[in-house]
Amino acid sequence: MKSETLVMKQHNFSAGPAILPQIVLEQASQAVIDYNGIGLSILEMSHRSPEFVAVMQEARDLVKLHLGAGDDYEVLFLTGGASSQFFMAAMNLLDENGKACYVDTGAWSAKAIKEAALFGEIDVLASSKDQNYNYIPKGLNIPSDATYLHITTNNTIYGTQYHNLPETNVPIIADMSSDIFSRPIDINRYGMIYAGAQKNLGPAGTTLVIIRKDMLNKVSRTIPTMLDYNTHIKKDSMFNTPPSYPVYVCLLTLRWLKEMGGMDAMKTHNETKAQLLYNEIDRNPLFKGTVALEDRSLMNVPFVTVDPAHQDAFMAVCKDKRISGVKGHRSVGGFRASIYNAMPMSSVEFLVEAMQEFERAQ
Amino acid sequence: MKSETLVMKQHNFSAGPAILPQIVLEQASQAVIDYNGIGLSILEMSHRSPEFVAVMQEARDLVKLHLGAGDDYEVLFLTGGASSQFFMAAMNLLDENGKACYVDTGAWSAKAIKEAALFGEIDVLASSKDQNYNYIPKGLNIPSDATYLHITTNNTIYGTQYHNLPETNVPIIADMSSDIFSRPIDINRYGMIYAGAQKNLGPAGTTLVIIRKDMLNKVSRTIPTMLDYNTHIKKDSMFNTPPSYPVYVCLLTLRWLKEMGGMDAMKTHNETKAQLLYNEIDRNPLFKGTVALEDRSLMNVPFVTVDPAHQDAFMAVCKDKRISGVKGHRSVGGFRASIYNAMPMSSVEFLVEAMQEFERAQ
Repeated sequence: MKSETLVMKQHNFSAGPAILPQIVLEQASQAVIDYNGIGLSILEMSHRSPEFVAVMQEARDLVKLHLGAGDDYEVLFLTGGASSQFFMAAMNLLDENGKACYVDTGAWSAKAIKEAALFGEIDVLASSKDQNYNYIPKGLNIPSDATYLHITTNNTIYGTQYHNLPETNVPIIADMSSDIFSRPIDINRYGMIYAGAQKNLGPAGTTLVIIRKDMLNKVSRTIPTMLDYNTHIKKDSMFNTPPSYPVYVCLLTLRWLKEMGGMDAMKTHNETKAQLLYNEIDRNPLFKGTVALEDRSLMNVPFVTVDPAHQDAFMAVCKDKRISGVKGHRSVGGFRASIYNAMPMSSVEFLVEAMQEFERAQ
Repeated sequence: MKSETLVMKQHNFSAGPAILPQIVLEQASQAVIDYNGIGLSILEMSHRSPEFVAVMQEARDLVKLHLGAGDDYEVLFLTGGASSQFFMAAMNLLDENGKACYVDTGAWSAKAIKEAALFGEIDVLASSKDQNYNYIPKGLNIPSDATYLHITTNNTIYGTQYHNLPETNVPIIADMSSDIFSRPIDINRYGMIYAGAQKNLGPAGTTLVIIRKDMLNKVSRTIPTMLDYNTHIKKDSMFNTPPSYPVYVCLLTLRWLKEMGGMDAMKTHNETKAQLLYNEIDRNPLFKGTVALEDRSLMNVPFVTVDPAHQDAFMAVCKDKRISGVKGHRSVGGFRASIYNAMPMSSVEFLVEAMQEFERAQ
């Protein structure tokens, strides 16, 4: 028996890089030694080899499958994180005489707004900053001549999530870094979707971009080759050497999603886990949630202790029980349990039991 | 015995992504299952965890150690490949009224020139394009008021390499993607060095940037946050989620380099391997080299068959013997053996024996 099999896994509630399915980790580990029995590690395999070209193609196809996207959409595995898409989206899609609308629902939205403002007029339609971003603004007045409306569908730090899209005919650009592939979506509402891989899709190191072709070629500015979406589209996301291992691990996760039953099954799985945890937060007199009920995220569940003096004690319980990654972001405090697709029900149950045990011990 | 141990490794002469040391692959595989016995995969570990912060810090420190760089240099692990540094170097370092000098030694140099021209005056001092880039231009007339001189120290496609730097007091910016850490360098000659990891350092997915601080803050243009070197320097290369696994594998390689004896030992190792292969190319009447003798690369060794009719036959021999990645780039033809740091002497000997056997069989 090899040593790693003796290690007790932590219950990993990290906000990102985050938990991946155990079967994905096992396949990903094996491929580092030898890829499919060919006598090469995936790490040392040419990206122009037939084997890797097939990896990239299957990954792009599965993204389309899970999103229900047709041939009018292109799928790219880029790098630079969602943080790079903050400026690339505007640089590629917003003409300097154009106007784009943004909703400010947290730190990442605010950064997207700041970077986009370098390239055109930005209209911030609403912000929940006044309430420390603990709700999603609604009833937006969206001008029909906007090039796009940008939203952050799930706000990792604050634990809010859009459960209904704003009503508009303007194409939506969505930062889905922390809830992509967690539920079915109506792809036709989106002009572009982007997501850093390291929350719900794979390891850090690749950024997924899905773009509807009619969004492109409407700006006149000069764009460096590597920053131009067209560059990567023309070369099937292989213009230069792609981040091959991160893309491969994303492929393994995309296959796992299919085997698990796809987006409908993920929605049920995620709702069931979130409901269990929110029910305990609402029932247990020692804890309380921090987010408007109707905007609670199914991915990131922030909560605090009613008595601030309990905070350190419950943190110690978590550490003792190998429940990791539950410390809340400094801008919210308390706790945050990130329960992405790969989080098993058993770990959520384990956390809930720890909360109940903590209650009995007081 | 697990199945992977039964796989006969290929002799991997790929130009990149390229061979990595076997011990690195074993450690890299293990960390995907469990990182240092902590009960988490490195793929699902927060980049803000003490464990990963230590990975990044050690990797940056070892880069400085191997290059002999002091505190006046900063080390960043970015993304986007050397292709992104083509424009980022000029965007960050070349003012719109400034002038930069470039030497055109191949396809990658030419791309660097094209992207830099978006940001200032570019003076192409020399080009070897007229001879299909089979030599390194010398005797450059470098204007002393240039902001920098850009060179590609090793030209992967054509198999040429600078064995002496141009004589100048102008700071050199070097694309060292395919020969970084292959030999000692005089770091003080360089204002900046960059390298995609996937040839001599690690897997695809991270780009190493080493920059001398006095090169910075001399341009007035507005730069998106993620494209500004200062952004990443201020946050110790962790402004946003870094490509954590590619960085970790680079760390493993940097440790291996140290254990192997560092840059002096690598120089001897690489010279010995290259000499063996070039000697055979020059001795064997069936083969010939394609590059000016004094500019031959120690990393990428292109050669052709004297009789074009022998080409397919020798390619078949290679395939039969599991010698992989030796097909020459389409712009040179023939064969190219990439013999980076991690390439063992035994595989070079194996290739040479195959060439001798091929000679005897004709």
